[in-house]
Amino acid sequence: MNVDGKAYRTVWSDNETTSFSVKIIDQKKLPFAFEVKELLSVSDVVRSITDMHVRGAGCIGVTAAYGMWLAAHESHGDPMLLRSFADSLMSSRPTANNLAWAVERQLSELINADPIDWTEIALNEAKLIADEDANWCRRIGENGKELLFDLAKNKPDDQTVNILTHCNAGWLAFSDWGSATAPIYAAHREDIPIHVWVDETRPLNQGSRLTAWELEKEGVPHTVIADNVGGHLMNTGKVDIVITGTDRTTRYGDVVNKIGTYLKALAAHDNGIPFYVALPSSTFDWKASEGGLGIPIEERSQDEVRKMEGLSSSGELMSVELTIPSVSYANYAFDVTPSRLVTGLITERGVCDASEKGVMELFSDKKQLCKS
Amino acid sequence: MNVDGKAYRTVWSDNETTSFSVKIIDQKKLPFAFEVKELLSVSDVVRSITDMHVRGAGCIGVTAAYGMWLAAHESHGDPMLLRSFADSLMSSRPTANNLAWAVERQLSELINADPIDWTEIALNEAKLIADEDANWCRRIGENGKELLFDLAKNKPDDQTVNILTHCNAGWLAFSDWGSATAPIYAAHREDIPIHVWVDETRPLNQGSRLTAWELEKEGVPHTVIADNVGGHLMNTGKVDIVITGTDRTTRYGDVVNKIGTYLKALAAHDNGIPFYVALPSSTFDWKASEGGLGIPIEERSQDEVRKMEGLSSSGELMSVELTIPSVSYANYAFDVTPSRLVTGLITERGVCDASEKGVMELFSDKKQLCKS
Repeated sequence: MNVDGKAYRTVWSDNETTSFSVKIIDQKKLPFAFEVKELLSVSDVVRSITDMHVRGAGCIGVTAAYGMWLAAHESHGDPMLLRSFADSLMSSRPTANNLAWAVERQLSELINADPIDWTEIALNEAKLIADEDANWCRRIGENGKELLFDLAKNKPDDQTVNILTHCNAGWLAFSDWGSATAPIYAAHREDIPIHVWVDETRPLNQGSRLTAWELEKEGVPHTVIADNVGGHLMNTGKVDIVITGTDRTTRYGDVVNKIGTYLKALAAHDNGIPFYVALPSSTFDWKASEGGLGIPIEERSQDEVRKMEGLSSSGELMSVELTIPSVSYANYAFDVTPSRLVTGLITERGVCDASEKGVMELFSDKKQLCKS
Repeated sequence: MNVDGKAYRTVWSDNETTSFSVKIIDQKKLPFAFEVKELLSVSDVVRSITDMHVRGAGCIGVTAAYGMWLAAHESHGDPMLLRSFADSLMSSRPTANNLAWAVERQLSELINADPIDWTEIALNEAKLIADEDANWCRRIGENGKELLFDLAKNKPDDQTVNILTHCNAGWLAFSDWGSATAPIYAAHREDIPIHVWVDETRPLNQGSRLTAWELEKEGVPHTVIADNVGGHLMNTGKVDIVITGTDRTTRYGDVVNKIGTYLKALAAHDNGIPFYVALPSSTFDWKASEGGLGIPIEERSQDEVRKMEGLSSSGELMSVELTIPSVSYANYAFDVTPSRLVTGLITERGVCDASEKGVMELFSDKKQLCKS
């Protein structure tokens, strides 16, 4: 997407003939500064994922795919070393499916190839994964915008369609376009009147920091709310549809996403409001069992909840501690929304029911990946 | 309750024979500093309520009751002036029932009395309201602790009972003891093993700032979580009971409380976890219609969400802005939890169903207050 008139992706490579350098938009700095960060080693890539300089299901998948290019270089033809780099990339964060998916895809391309071709193969595959991610998200937009068109059609007097979203499933969370935001961007570009309620998304505020920044750059009207507010908005007729992303989805339609998603799905269900989840197929965990409760839920440092970053009155970016040091916090990063609360899944192949039947009809070619 | 060995209430009067002075614990300073603030006029009292130096249903009721003592003094016997002070106290915040309840109770005591007795009557009535509030909360503790005893009994091997609470319905929110915390304090003092999950409660963080401070002072084990986390905890067996307070409750059992309560009630319901609401009878709005959707929901300044107060690394208390200035926020302060999601109400008279039948059986003497 465009940032101040220039087209960007979230991850890319530079000067590939002379150096091994991966560039990322440093998402820890947004929205206060737009900075490009250079990653020069596998350990740089691991750190950038663990410390969330890049985050979001698709974006960490693409970053890890480029990480495997650096791994191919650093392995010097040693398959054991390559696998060990792959392991460290895969374990940089535990919950998102796209991470392991991208690394395993690279591994299977490389492991039987001549090591002399590794870097070229890995670079091409990383670019392919990034392009696919962008294209899939673009098609999610095409498929999902119809839902917004229908809502707009059924509103009297060109009234605005109100969408609620949680966390950032925008283009920053992917290579481009985003998952939850792709239908929003597509509908907005076709002049459907929309307004987005953006959940702040504590503890790291990806909503108020990243989603709001994206929507502003694209000119989409939006309002940030505390995570507590969505139920009240739904209960008082102020939300027409909820669209979120997901970090891992079972083939039964159960959705692992940023902590708090489940609460919004419950509120949507209680108020008869459609709750859609947008995802490229790389987010499906074909082997995960029904209900999704076996999927690992990342626990992160309590400092992420205890501290909050922002601008001081003198314009300095700084962290403050929100309570006294003796208080303990817990920091679970994801939750599971069961399929019964999900109206549908918006994928690159179309919109389907959040059920094994719905998913496997669209993705019948993935049957062999499913655990029997 | 005790603060560093000295017994405090949240609001009291001082040197009543020589001066008109109301003392409050300044809750905007907690937990970083424990300071007592002096209010010397009705407008001081109004400001302290509006700006939330005092907050919480019972506490603002008691503060307003003391405010009527200052109003009695400042009215110089003029009933019109007294009513106008009463109006400004009642409109200092719109949602909590206890505020209007306390002011109207004072007015009805004063308006037919000899103005020469106004200040004495108002002071006595304010003390009575404060004492009643404390006694009612103490009895809420006695009645509610049985629920925790029962949960503890049904746990194997003296396992801890996990309670989740939202916002601060602690002693700071009342004259003493608190509503949601009263059963917790009572059970803890009788050595029932308990642990409290404390919702941070954005935007103003009454959970991490006030409830955590209270629980620490009382030695009750607790962990603060972002407001997004409760659903996941309930979904994974980490919560045995939810207890919250309320700012206004219909006689049908619908509960208006801090924004986000409804989401936790939905999650408790979805996971078969009991969801109790603790309240003194002063919180009942006997005239409110079923469903509670006619009750005014306060909208506060967006700066309360945009900014966050905390300690800098050099120990200075300061505010930071959480995103760029162009982002708009909305700040709804309360939501409505319908009675169908409430397992029961814990009152000073006992625990009852959250239904008209349950409430009116306990409070049959209030029938004449109900709208026909």
